[in-house]
Amino acid sequence: MLLDQYRIRQEPYYRPLKDEVELFGAAYANRMPVMLKGPTGCGKTRFIEYMAWRLGRPLITVACHEDMTAADLVGRWLLDAEGTVWSDGPLTTAVRLGAICYLDEIVEARQDTTVVIHPLTDDRRVLPLEKRGELIHAHSDFQLVISYNPGYQSAIKDLKESTKQRFAALDFGYPDRSAETEVVSREAGIEPNLADLLVKIAQHSRNLKGQGLDEGASTRMLVNAGRLIGCGISLEKACETTIVVPLTDDADTRNTLRDVISASA
Amino acid sequence: MLLDQYRIRQEPYYRPLKDEVELFGAAYANRMPVMLKGPTGCGKTRFIEYMAWRLGRPLITVACHEDMTAADLVGRWLLDAEGTVWSDGPLTTAVRLGAICYLDEIVEARQDTTVVIHPLTDDRRVLPLEKRGELIHAHSDFQLVISYNPGYQSAIKDLKESTKQRFAALDFGYPDRSAETEVVSREAGIEPNLADLLVKIAQHSRNLKGQGLDEGASTRMLVNAGRLIGCGISLEKACETTIVVPLTDDADTRNTLRDVISASA
Amino acid sequence: MLLDQYRIRQEPYYRPLKDEVELFGAAYANRMPVMLKGPTGCGKTRFIEYMAWRLGRPLITVACHEDMTAADLVGRWLLDAEGTVWSDGPLTTAVRLGAICYLDEIVEARQDTTVVIHPLTDDRRVLPLEKRGELIHAHSDFQLVISYNPGYQSAIKDLKESTKQRFAALDFGYPDRSAETEVVSREAGIEPNLADLLVKIAQHSRNLKGQGLDEGASTRMLVNAGRLIGCGISLEKACETTIVVPLTDDADTRNTLRDVISASA
Amino acid sequence: MLLDQYRIRQEPYYRPLKDEVELFGAAYANRMPVMLKGPTGCGKTRFIEYMAWRLGRPLITVACHEDMTAADLVGRWLLDAEGTVWSDGPLTTAVRLGAICYLDEIVEARQDTTVVIHPLTDDRRVLPLEKRGELIHAHSDFQLVISYNPGYQSAIKDLKESTKQRFAALDFGYPDRSAETEVVSREAGIEPNLADLLVKIAQHSRNLKGQGLDEGASTRMLVNAGRLIGCGISLEKACETTIVVPLTDDADTRNTLRDVISASA
Amino acid sequence: MLLDQYRIRQEPYYRPLKDEVELFGAAYANRMPVMLKGPTGCGKTRFIEYMAWRLGRPLITVACHEDMTAADLVGRWLLDAEGTVWSDGPLTTAVRLGAICYLDEIVEARQDTTVVIHPLTDDRRVLPLEKRGELIHAHSDFQLVISYNPGYQSAIKDLKESTKQRFAALDFGYPDRSAETEVVSREAGIEPNLADLLVKIAQHSRNLKGQGLDEGASTRMLVNAGRLIGCGISLEKACETTIVVPLTDDADTRNTLRDVISASA
Amino acid sequence: MLLDQYRIRQEPYYRPLKDEVELFGAAYANRMPVMLKGPTGCGKTRFIEYMAWRLGRPLITVACHEDMTAADLVGRWLLDAEGTVWSDGPLTTAVRLGAICYLDEIVEARQDTTVVIHPLTDDRRVLPLEKRGELIHAHSDFQLVISYNPGYQSAIKDLKESTKQRFAALDFGYPDRSAETEVVSREAGIEPNLADLLVKIAQHSRNLKGQGLDEGASTRMLVNAGRLIGCGISLEKACETTIVVPLTDDADTRNTLRDVISASA
Repeated sequence: MLLDQYRIRQEPYYRPLKDEVELFGAAYANRMPVMLKGPTGCGKTRFIEYMAWRLGRPLITVACHEDMTAADLVGRWLLDAEGTVWSDGPLTTAVRLGAICYLDEIVEARQDTTVVIHPLTDDRRVLPLEKRGELIHAHSDFQLVISYNPGYQSAIKDLKESTKQRFAALDFGYPDRSAETEVVSREAGIEPNLADLLVKIAQHSRNLKGQGLDEGASTRMLVNAGRLIGCGISLEKACETTIVVPLTDDADTRNTLRDVISASA
Repeated sequence: MLLDQYRIRQEPYYRPLKDEVELFGAAYANRMPVMLKGPTGCGKTRFIEYMAWRLGRPLITVACHEDMTAADLVGRWLLDAEGTVWSDGPLTTAVRLGAICYLDEIVEARQDTTVVIHPLTDDRRVLPLEKRGELIHAHSDFQLVISYNPGYQSAIKDLKESTKQRFAALDFGYPDRSAETEVVSREAGIEPNLADLLVKIAQHSRNLKGQGLDEGASTRMLVNAGRLIGCGISLEKACETTIVVPLTDDADTRNTLRDVISASA
Repeated sequence: MLLDQYRIRQEPYYRPLKDEVELFGAAYANRMPVMLKGPTGCGKTRFIEYMAWRLGRPLITVACHEDMTAADLVGRWLLDAEGTVWSDGPLTTAVRLGAICYLDEIVEARQDTTVVIHPLTDDRRVLPLEKRGELIHAHSDFQLVISYNPGYQSAIKDLKESTKQRFAALDFGYPDRSAETEVVSREAGIEPNLADLLVKIAQHSRNLKGQGLDEGASTRMLVNAGRLIGCGISLEKACETTIVVPLTDDADTRNTLRDVISASA
Repeated sequence: MLLDQYRIRQEPYYRPLKDEVELFGAAYANRMPVMLKGPTGCGKTRFIEYMAWRLGRPLITVACHEDMTAADLVGRWLLDAEGTVWSDGPLTTAVRLGAICYLDEIVEARQDTTVVIHPLTDDRRVLPLEKRGELIHAHSDFQLVISYNPGYQSAIKDLKESTKQRFAALDFGYPDRSAETEVVSREAGIEPNLADLLVKIAQHSRNLKGQGLDEGASTRMLVNAGRLIGCGISLEKACETTIVVPLTDDADTRNTLRDVISASA
Repeated sequence: MLLDQYRIRQEPYYRPLKDEVELFGAAYANRMPVMLKGPTGCGKTRFIEYMAWRLGRPLITVACHEDMTAADLVGRWLLDAEGTVWSDGPLTTAVRLGAICYLDEIVEARQDTTVVIHPLTDDRRVLPLEKRGELIHAHSDFQLVISYNPGYQSAIKDLKESTKQRFAALDFGYPDRSAETEVVSREAGIEPNLADLLVKIAQHSRNLKGQGLDEGASTRMLVNAGRLIGCGISLEKACETTIVVPLTDDADTRNTLRDVISASA
Repeated sequence: MLLDQYRIRQEPYYRPLKDEVELFGAAYANRMPVMLKGPTGCGKTRFIEYMAWRLGRPLITVACHEDMTAADLVGRWLLDAEGTVWSDGPLTTAVRLGAICYLDEIVEARQDTTVVIHPLTDDRRVLPLEKRGELIHAHSDFQLVISYNPGYQSAIKDLKESTKQRFAALDFGYPDRSAETEVVSREAGIEPNLADLLVKIAQHSRNLKGQGLDEGASTRMLVNAGRLIGCGISLEKACETTIVVPLTDDADTRNTLRDVISASA
C-alpha cells in the first residue's frame, strides 16, 4: 500500500518538554489542525515523528520553500501515453488515505499553498481539486500539522490572520540542561559528563544571540560535536568544526565562542 | 450528475445576525451579485452554505489566492490521447449548470480573475471563454457571491471601483454575547456556562485589537478551545493552546491574555 | 456560423446623451477605430451593444486585464491528435469574419496587446499572425472599438501617444436627471417618482467624490436598489445594501450617505 | 510563394521630405542596415512601404513590443504529429528568402531581440539559429530596417551603443505646410482649402507640445478629421472627435484646442 | 560534418594592434580561457575570427543577451515522434567536437550561463549536462573565449570574481591613425586620403565622449560612411547619415559634430 | 555503471593546509554533511576531489546558480514515446547509488534547492521526491558537501540558520608562501624560483584587497601566468595578461600592480 513507506516503524527517541504529548493527543482526537512553533533544531520534526508513531498513523512530511505552489501539494495533470493522467500530490494522498500531513516551515511557501488548506482546517474538512473538478472529503484519520519559526518571519512572510486562527498551537524551545544532556549523550553515543559539557557550551552560545549570533548552537550541533569526538577528534577541534565555523564568520564572535569552549573544557 | 457533490445535504447550523437572510433572498430573486464583508472566522462561509441549502442550490466555493489566474476559474485546454480537450473550471461549471459560485477572498486573486466576472455581473450575464471561442449565457439559477475582508486590503490589493459597483453588499461581524454563546456551546458540545465564559474571554481579546493583536479571538477559536476542554484539558491549557499561542508571539501580550483568562476562569 | 453567437438579437435599450450615435455612424462608415471614454457604469458597454445592433454587425467583446497577452487576442497553437493546430483568438475572428471588436479597458492589458492593434488601425488594416506566418487583410465590415476610463490611468498604465492618435474618441458621462430617471425606472421596473428619488441620492453621492468616495453611485447601483425595492425591501435597506455598504467602509462617509438617503426618502 | 503576401502591389502614395529616397537607395545598394527616426504618425511606415515597392522587394513588418522575444523573430520548435518541427519566425523568413525586414519600435522589444540582429548587421550577415544548430547566411537581397522614436526612450529602454553604431539613420518629421496639405487632401479626399485649414490647426497644436500636450496632432489625425467631414460631420465636431478628445483629458487644454479650431474655422 | 559550417574559409582581414596574436597563441597552446576586453566596433569579433582561421579551428559564436539561459548554451530535451531527444546547444557542440566557442558580451546573459562555464575553465575541463546525466570531457582542441566591454557594466551586471580569475585577458582599443586609415580604406573600398579624413573626424568625435556622446564614432561607422560615399553620396550627407544622426539626438552635439565634419572636409 | 563516470581515477595533487583531511575523514565516517568555506580559487574543489579519491567514492559536482531549482537537483518527468518517464537529477543519483554530492556555491541557487537538502542532512537521511510520490532512503555511502564563500554573501542571499546548523564546516584560505610556491611550480611546470616570485606578486596583490581590488590574485592566476611563461612569454607580459588585465579596469590600480610586478622581477 502506498502509505506504507510513510509509516514510522520504530519508536523514535523523544523526551517530552512539558505537556505537548497530551495536548497533541486531544487535538488529534478532534482532528484539530496543529501548529508547532519554535527555533531551528529543537526537535519539532522529531516530535511529530514520535506522535505519528504513538498514534499509529502514517506521516507525510513536506519541506516548504519559496517556489512551492499549491500544485506541488495537491497534484497535477501529467501527460501519459493514454493522455493526461492526474497525479495526487502529498497533501492529497494524506487527505484521501488518512495520514498526518506535516507542512514544515509553511510560511516559506507561496501564498496559494496556505489558502489551499483553509477548507481542510474548518468543519468542512474538504479539499477541492479545482483542476480536476473533484471535491475530496478528508479521510477520518487525516490531520494537518504545520511548523512555524517565529524568529524568522518578516512582515511580508507571515501567516494571514485567517490562517493562524484555524490552528491549535504548541510552543517548542530548547530542553532544560539535564534533558538536553540526556538527548546529546544518547544521540551522539558519548558519556553524560561530556554531553553535559557540550550543553553548557551551547547555553553560553545561546546568550550570545543578538550579540553577534543570529541563533545559538542547537541540540543538533551538540550531537554533531559529540559524534566527531567519538571518532577521536579533540573537543576543541570538534567544537570548532561543528559550532564555531558554521555559526559565524566574524572573527571576534568566533574568539568569544572559542573562549567559552576553552573555559568549559 | 456533476453538481451533486456540491449540494449541501443537511441544514447547516446558522444563527442570523440581522436581516441578512431576507436581503440575500431578495438579491437572489434578482440573481444580483452579492459581496459578503467582514473579519475572519465570523461566519461568512457558514452563511453562504446556509443560504445555498435554503435556496436549494448547489454551492461551488473557490478559495482565491495570489497565484490564481482566470484560467483556474474558467478552465483550460488539457492534452488528451485524442488531442487537447477543454476542461471547465469551477466558475464555468457553476455558470453552465446553475450553481451559486462563492469566490472567497476575491481580492487575493490576480486581477484577471476579477475582470472575468464583469460580463457575468451585469445584464448580459455571459461568460466569454476566449480560449475556446465560446460565449456562455448563464444558467437562470446561477448567482455570483464574493467575500471581502475590509481590514486586510491595501491600496494595491483592492477591488476596482468598476467591480465594486456591481455587487449588493452585506456586512458581517461577530455575533452579540448571547448569540455567540449559543453558537460555541452547540458547535463545541459544551455547557452554555462554559461557552459564555469563553465568549467573555474573546470579547476582552477583541478589545486588544490594535494594542498588540492584529485581530481578537474568533468564534472559531472558542469552538476549538471548547472541544479541547471536552477532551479533559483544563480551561487554562485549552485557551493557551487555541488562543494565546496562535494569536501572538509577543511575551507581554501573551501575559495580558493569560491574565484575562485567569480572571474569567 | 461562428459569428451568430455574437449577434445582438434584440434592440438594446439605449438613451442617447448627445450626438454620439451620429458620430459613431460616420466613424464606422470610414471603418475608423473608435475609443469610448468615461467612468464606470455610465453605459459605454450598452452603447456599443446598441450600435452593433443598429449597424447589424456581430459584436465580440473582450474584457482586458493585466495578465492578458497578445496571444489571448490573436490566437495560439494548440496540440491536437494530428499535431499542433492554430486556434484564432477573438480579435482574429473579428478581423477575419467582419465583426466589431470591442476591447474593454484596453490599458489594463499588457503592452503587446496594444501594439498588435497598430497595423489594424491605419490604412493597412492588416493583422500579422507572426507565429503562423500569415498576414490577414481585415474583412471590410471589421471595426475596432476600445474603452478607456480617464480617471483610472496612472503614468505607467496609459496608452502610448502612437496608439491614442489612431482613434476617434467619444466622451461619456452620467446622463442628466430626467434621462437617468427614465433609465432607472425602465431597467428596475419601478415608478418614475421612486426612480427620480434614487437619482437625487446618486447625484448627492457624486458630489462626495474626492471627499471620502472614489466615485459616486453609478446608474447601475440605482437599478440594483430599485430592483430590491421591487422585491419588497424598504428604500433605506435597499440603498444600504446596494449603495452605502459597497461604496465605502469608512464609518463617517457611510453616515453621510445615510443622511442623504433619509433626507431624500 | 511564401513571400508573395509580403509584396507591395500598388505604388504607395509617398511625398518625399528631403533626400531620404536617395540615401536609402545608396544604403540598400550596400545592404547597410537603416534606422528611421521620428515622431508618431509622420510617415515612417509609409516611407518603408514606398521604398520596398520602389526597390521591388517584399516587406516583412514586425511591430515590436515589451513581451516580444527573440523566438518571436527567429522561430521556434512546434510539436507536430511527427514530432517537433521548426517554424521560421518573420526575421528568419526575410533572411532566408531575401525580403526587407522592418522592425517597428525596436526599443520596445526585450533585449534579446536587439542582440539577435548583431551578426546580421556587420560584414558577417549571418543569423545563428542556436536552438536549431543552423547558421543562415543572409540572402543577397535581405536588408534590415528599424524605427526609433527619440522622444519616447527612457534611460532604461534605449538601444545599446553597440547596436546604434551598426545603422545608417534617417531623420523624419512632419512635412511642411504645403506638403502636409497635399497629403491630407489626397488621403481624406477633401478640398485643398479645407485640408490647409486642418494643417493650420495641427501646427497650432504642435506648439502646445510640452504645454499640456505630450505630442501635437499628427498628419494621421488630420486625415481622420477630414474623413468625418467628408461624411457630413461639421468641422468643429470632427476636430472634437478626432483631435481634442483623443489628445487630452485636461479641460483647460481642451478649451485651448477648441479656441484654435474656432479661430481657424 | 556539423562543424564545417563554423570553419572560416578565407583569411579575414585583421591588422594587429600590439602583441595580441602572440599572446592568444600561447593561451591557446595551453587551452587557457581568454577574455577580450574593449569598446564596441573596435574589432574584437574580427580578431577572434582571424585567430580561428590562423589556428585552423572552427569558431562557434554566441551573442549573449539578458534572456539567455544555460539551456540555450548547453542544450535541451526536445519532444520527437519517438519521445524526447536531446539537442546539444552551441557550447556543447564546441566542447564535444573541438571548436573555439566565443561568447560575445557574456555579462549580458543570465547568471546560470556564467556558472556553466566554470568546470570548463579549470583543470577539469568538463561540462556536466545535469539534465542528461552526462559529464563531457572537453575535446583537446576546445577553447573558451569571451568578450567584455568594461564601459558598460553596472554593479549588478558584472562577472563574479570567481569567473574573472579563470581567464587570461587582452585589452582592445581603436587602432592608431595610420592603422585605422588602412582598415577603413580597405573595407570601404575608398582612397587612403578620404579614409584618413574620416579617421580624423572619428578621432574628434571620440574626444566628445562624456561631453554629449556616450561613445565616439567606431571604425565600423567610418566604413559605413566610406561605402555611401562610394555610391556617390557627398561626404557631408554620408557622415550625417552614418555618424551624426545615429550617434545622438541632441541638437547641440549634432551641430558640434557637423562643424567637425565641415572643418575636415 | 552510471557512477563510473564520476569516479576520480588518478590521485589529484593536493597539499593539505592544516588538519582538514583528518576532520573530513571523521565527518565522512559519521556521514555528517560538510561545508567548505573560503575565497575563490584557493582549492576547495581540488580538496573535495582529493577526498573523494582518498575515500574511494564517486563525486558528483553541481555548480549552483541563480536559476537553479530543486527540479534541477532532484529530477523531473520527461515526456517519452510511452508517456512521461522520471529522470533522476544529480542529487538523486548520488543519494540512490551512494556518491559524495558536492553543491558548489549553494547560496547562489534558489531557495527551494536548500530546503530539499534538509531531510538528507539530519538523522532521517531521506529524499522525498514529491512529484513522484517516492521517499528515498539514502545509500549508506552517500554524503552531502557544499561550498560557501563568506565574502560574497549579501543579507538577501545567505544560508538560513536552519540550514547552516546542519553542517560541520571547514575553513579554507590561501596556502602559506612555501606551500603556494610548491603548488604553482608543480601545476604550471616552472622552476620553484620563478613560482616563488609569482607568489610574492600575488601576496602583494592580496594586500590591495579593498583598496581598488575586490580580491587579490588567486593561486589559479599564478598557475596561468606560469604556463604562459613556459610558452616563452616574458614575465611582465604574462602577468599583465593573467593578473593585471583580468583583475581590474582601473588605470591607477593597474599601475600599482605593474609596479609590484616590476619590483619583483
